Amino acid sequence: MTEKQRIAIVGGTGYAGAELLRLLSAHPNAEVVAVTSRGDAGTPVADAYPQLRGVIDLDFVAPDDHAFANCDIVFFATPHAAAMHDVPALLDAGKRVIDLSADFRLKDVEEWSAWYGVEHACPELIERAVYGMPELNRAAIADANLVAAPGCYPTAIVLGFKPLVEAGLVDVERLIADAKTGVSGAGKSLKPGFLFAEMQESFKAYGVAGHRHLPEIRQSLAALAGGNVGLTFVPHLVPMIRGIHATLYAQLAAQGHDLQAVYERAYADEPFVDVLPAGAMPETRHVRGANMCRMAVHRPGDGDTVVVLSVIDNLVKGAAGQAVQCFNLMIGADETCGLAVPGALP
Amino acid sequence: MTEKQRIAIVGGTGYAGAELLRLLSAHPNAEVVAVTSRGDAGTPVADAYPQLRGVIDLDFVAPDDHAFANCDIVFFATPHAAAMHDVPALLDAGKRVIDLSADFRLKDVEEWSAWYGVEHACPELIERAVYGMPELNRAAIADANLVAAPGCYPTAIVLGFKPLVEAGLVDVERLIADAKTGVSGAGKSLKPGFLFAEMQESFKAYGVAGHRHLPEIRQSLAALAGGNVGLTFVPHLVPMIRGIHATLYAQLAAQGHDLQAVYERAYADEPFVDVLPAGAMPETRHVRGANMCRMAVHRPGDGDTVVVLSVIDNLVKGAAGQAVQCFNLMIGADETCGLAVPGALP
Amino acid sequence: MTEKQRIAIVGGTGYAGAELLRLLSAHPNAEVVAVTSRGDAGTPVADAYPQLRGVIDLDFVAPDDHAFANCDIVFFATPHAAAMHDVPALLDAGKRVIDLSADFRLKDVEEWSAWYGVEHACPELIERAVYGMPELNRAAIADANLVAAPGCYPTAIVLGFKPLVEAGLVDVERLIADAKTGVSGAGKSLKPGFLFAEMQESFKAYGVAGHRHLPEIRQSLAALAGGNVGLTFVPHLVPMIRGIHATLYAQLAAQGHDLQAVYERAYADEPFVDVLPAGAMPETRHVRGANMCRMAVHRPGDGDTVVVLSVIDNLVKGAAGQAVQCFNLMIGADETCGLAVPGALP
Amino acid sequence: MTEKQRIAIVGGTGYAGAELLRLLSAHPNAEVVAVTSRGDAGTPVADAYPQLRGVIDLDFVAPDDHAFANCDIVFFATPHAAAMHDVPALLDAGKRVIDLSADFRLKDVEEWSAWYGVEHACPELIERAVYGMPELNRAAIADANLVAAPGCYPTAIVLGFKPLVEAGLVDVERLIADAKTGVSGAGKSLKPGFLFAEMQESFKAYGVAGHRHLPEIRQSLAALAGGNVGLTFVPHLVPMIRGIHATLYAQLAAQGHDLQAVYERAYADEPFVDVLPAGAMPETRHVRGANMCRMAVHRPGDGDTVVVLSVIDNLVKGAAGQAVQCFNLMIGADETCGLAVPGALP
Repeated sequence: MTEKQRIAIVGGTGYAGAELLRLLSAHPNAEVVAVTSRGDAGTPVADAYPQLRGVIDLDFVAPDDHAFANCDIVFFATPHAAAMHDVPALLDAGKRVIDLSADFRLKDVEEWSAWYGVEHACPELIERAVYGMPELNRAAIADANLVAAPGCYPTAIVLGFKPLVEAGLVDVERLIADAKTGVSGAGKSLKPGFLFAEMQESFKAYGVAGHRHLPEIRQSLAALAGGNVGLTFVPHLVPMIRGIHATLYAQLAAQGHDLQAVYERAYADEPFVDVLPAGAMPETRHVRGANMCRMAVHRPGDGDTVVVLSVIDNLVKGAAGQAVQCFNLMIGADETCGLAVPGALP
Repeated sequence: MTEKQRIAIVGGTGYAGAELLRLLSAHPNAEVVAVTSRGDAGTPVADAYPQLRGVIDLDFVAPDDHAFANCDIVFFATPHAAAMHDVPALLDAGKRVIDLSADFRLKDVEEWSAWYGVEHACPELIERAVYGMPELNRAAIADANLVAAPGCYPTAIVLGFKPLVEAGLVDVERLIADAKTGVSGAGKSLKPGFLFAEMQESFKAYGVAGHRHLPEIRQSLAALAGGNVGLTFVPHLVPMIRGIHATLYAQLAAQGHDLQAVYERAYADEPFVDVLPAGAMPETRHVRGANMCRMAVHRPGDGDTVVVLSVIDNLVKGAAGQAVQCFNLMIGADETCGLAVPGALP
Repeated sequence: MTEKQRIAIVGGTGYAGAELLRLLSAHPNAEVVAVTSRGDAGTPVADAYPQLRGVIDLDFVAPDDHAFANCDIVFFATPHAAAMHDVPALLDAGKRVIDLSADFRLKDVEEWSAWYGVEHACPELIERAVYGMPELNRAAIADANLVAAPGCYPTAIVLGFKPLVEAGLVDVERLIADAKTGVSGAGKSLKPGFLFAEMQESFKAYGVAGHRHLPEIRQSLAALAGGNVGLTFVPHLVPMIRGIHATLYAQLAAQGHDLQAVYERAYADEPFVDVLPAGAMPETRHVRGANMCRMAVHRPGDGDTVVVLSVIDNLVKGAAGQAVQCFNLMIGADETCGLAVPGALP
Repeated sequence: MTEKQRIAIVGGTGYAGAELLRLLSAHPNAEVVAVTSRGDAGTPVADAYPQLRGVIDLDFVAPDDHAFANCDIVFFATPHAAAMHDVPALLDAGKRVIDLSADFRLKDVEEWSAWYGVEHACPELIERAVYGMPELNRAAIADANLVAAPGCYPTAIVLGFKPLVEAGLVDVERLIADAKTGVSGAGKSLKPGFLFAEMQESFKAYGVAGHRHLPEIRQSLAALAGGNVGLTFVPHLVPMIRGIHATLYAQLAAQGHDLQAVYERAYADEPFVDVLPAGAMPETRHVRGANMCRMAVHRPGDGDTVVVLSVIDNLVKGAAGQAVQCFNLMIGADETCGLAVPGALP
């Protein structure tokens, strides 16, 4: 039996941080001992998240050495370019780190700097970091000291394309990912476009010219394809809080395969990927609050265009839930520990 | 240690039924052995509720004797005037029953018939039925064979008024409950007014002339007041799925009381009533998915009008969660068993 | 025939400003010649409001003398405590002013300062300012050079109570206004609570201890009552963009009146107040986009508590539309000019 | 000057009918003389659409000869397979008809029957019917007696692809239209999936295997391409009332063209197509309530995949507004007559 791990959460005032608290507060092998917030240090965590009144009885602490002295594992739920400044010292101090931000996701540090607009603070750690998508990297995650939890779009899109690309069934030069997200993926950013009055009753594309998740998705697909891939990625904003729906288009390059069977086989042993029956279409609410990716594969009119529909909750399988899944692997617990509860619907 | 109870859920295709399944599937003392649905018998429960794929592995069964043979406790999550036809036989067969519908809530059977428009099928059982609000009736619930789980509005409103009325601090002739609900309280009714295109971006009152929850609320308040009460109850429909917010108005009849202290004392030992700090204002999302009633008491301008704000999730503390709370009492388990998980936010 | 008025709009980047542009662009007696915005000067108005591409062909200008030189009437759609600095010079220059902000609404300048937290810049103008609710002040508005357009809550609440209070039918010591608003009333404020992820699927009260519209409502009701009134006002935030629904409670002080007839008579000649048939309940979407207040009067259970339901679009009859109604009166046009188009539904 | 046309609307209780009433009630050349509804005959139109109280003062009438005796033009806003039964007699009686339903859109009557599941009642009229998209068919519409107003998806998609396909710039074998719609496109259908509790906070694809608008889109694109086209069309449902956002993907077949210039030229003279500046991304709210299609053309990473973003209000440019645009052409009025008012935002 795994013993209880003492956990610190850095950046606990954001949405991914709140979701970590929800999941870890019910996890038998986890004890949250510190939640940091520079701005709110000294105030109860439950003041920021009233849904946790009576559940989390901690005050926020400043993110200094003291905060981490007593913990085994540190989760970063910070904006990008923050974790990279603190991770080296934590690893030196023998802590293990799960970073939910983008700092250690891209293996090409030049590309990282180009997309994030700053120099990387510890490029030497990038190679050591393990990309935290268990369906790609299960064994490596178990042994890692530094896990880079994937972005939300990459989770939905890479899992959706994986069976096709891995098996060489489609033209990887012409992949299209038309993805739609709820707004919580943007965190609590105070930007006009995220105001209720600006989002309600409207739908739009954004970042058509380029989105930071594009290189991350390409990196994973290229690894699966064993070579470069051509991907057009168009993200859209849906007037809802949670959920990603990726509609994926690819051109068949090989005939005669039963795509439904290919998908079912590919994910037969995955606890958190659910291939729906032929003809079904997943809805984002079917995974709301749950650590689950549900998907369906279609071939409209029996033509050469394959359409894959892949949904996740961006804050769970796309962030905090997947991080806890990695945590389970890292501590040798059952991978589903603390993650088996279904979401509420409606 | 309590042993596992075998449970049947009647009317499992509605929202309260789905919520029962969510809560009971994670409950250590419960094993759902049958979910009935006349229309969907033979099809997987998870087809109706894809969020339960991989969690509930049962087919719907027809609601006949066979369905109940193997169970200890039956939950009814049916529309009104259904449970009353089946309950007598179930009680005779030694089952215990928790009815989430309105059939056994009103002690005055004439009034029940007047509001629900049918004769009661088993008026002789009404007296035996225990009203399932633990904060009013804890001991009686523990011993009951037939529990009438309260309506959603009555839960929010009665809990909100209780400390004032019980202590005789307000004029009970002039109580006002201005209540607002999300649409899931109406269940899956196929009425035009519940269509997305008719509800989104709109707010309205309904049932101003009279709502079925009015006599139920009056019955409980009268018991607390020790005599008749005068209550104006105006329900409103909010463009959201879950949540009830009751704004309660009463005229102070006694001076010199510290209302904040009165409320904190009244609910000090209640696991599922949370009195917020002075000045706070609860939001329905603070209880979304959770079996919790959060409330705050205000006295604007230090005048004679007391304003109480009381919020619940209508499907949890207002329906399935409260039913599970009663279940815990009935089987001698810890009252919070299976109900301690916080809701997801945002 | 009235000639075309040249109009400047100050603070054209907010929601009330956008709504003024929408209404005035289709008004036969109005020509918008300047829209000011300190931050966006030099950029096209249609960049800020793409729905106006092809309709408004102006650039924002800085709010200096030059901007106003060429205009007859200036609309202020600014936050409070801005207009009061510019209005004196404009009046001196012979312009007429319609202020949509709160600067000239309260006749008691001490009270104004107490609620808005600053000294008033031109208290000598307060007496000259005419409160721009045509149903109260039609003749005075026609002659005014400075009109203070009412707040949104006050419009819905004062119009709703008016027939009862004016006729002395209710106890004015015990009035209750439980009001619910869409978020656009808060303007484009970048506050966390107005983010989509914080508002969607939630409902809450706010400002229970005191809201700036309280003294404004009291002032109008007191004028109608001919003496002080006691009012409890609790505002709530609805997850929608537009609409106010006021649920008003009063205790009957006089018997034997046909309240439906009282209301119909009171508003028989008002073009923008619609008394619904007995038993009806207005929805905010019934006035969305329209300069209209629809209301219904109820007496649940034929008791002594009167319930009035009053709905407006906070940006139209609660702001820009009412300002245009005043404009029509001021220039001698038909009061309904440019305001007769119904809103779109659904 | 065109004289006033007397208009009958068949099927006036649906959303397109309501939108026709809104637009025609403010149209200088239109007088609505009859609105039919079998179910609501004898009751005021304004009872069904309270936003029209005081604007439309008609009762619904039964859809018999009497209803049409007095009119010049009949608009059908009925479900499919209804208009085709009444149109022959109306044309014989000298009326002109604008059909908003699908009955006369497809030139291939076999295909029509296959998709709509019934035999066509008057196949001989199909050839005479003119497809009512002014940007394709302006002159023919002006002379038509029977206009088939286009579907909502086809309007957004065909207008979006038109410049590329017409100029032969893309591979027409591999067109993809990933389209997203608000729910009002489904009309007032009482289906569970359109309930607020089932749609709010969720996003899904539907009809992946085949949607009735697919043959309609293909028909128009084939005409533009001068030959068959290959189109994958995946519709999605957005939790909002109004708006369609089509994200269109095509592979460049010709190099060296300035796509922005191609689009601007193609639509330079169109009053209701707005090509946004390079780099812009339209939002559905920018056309809410307006008869306008706004679009933007992108080429991410300067690659070979062209992405076109095209938005309309499905009830206006996608239904009632486009029908009124056709009406204007048919009666020789200015094409923009009654359609120039911008939508309200927010």
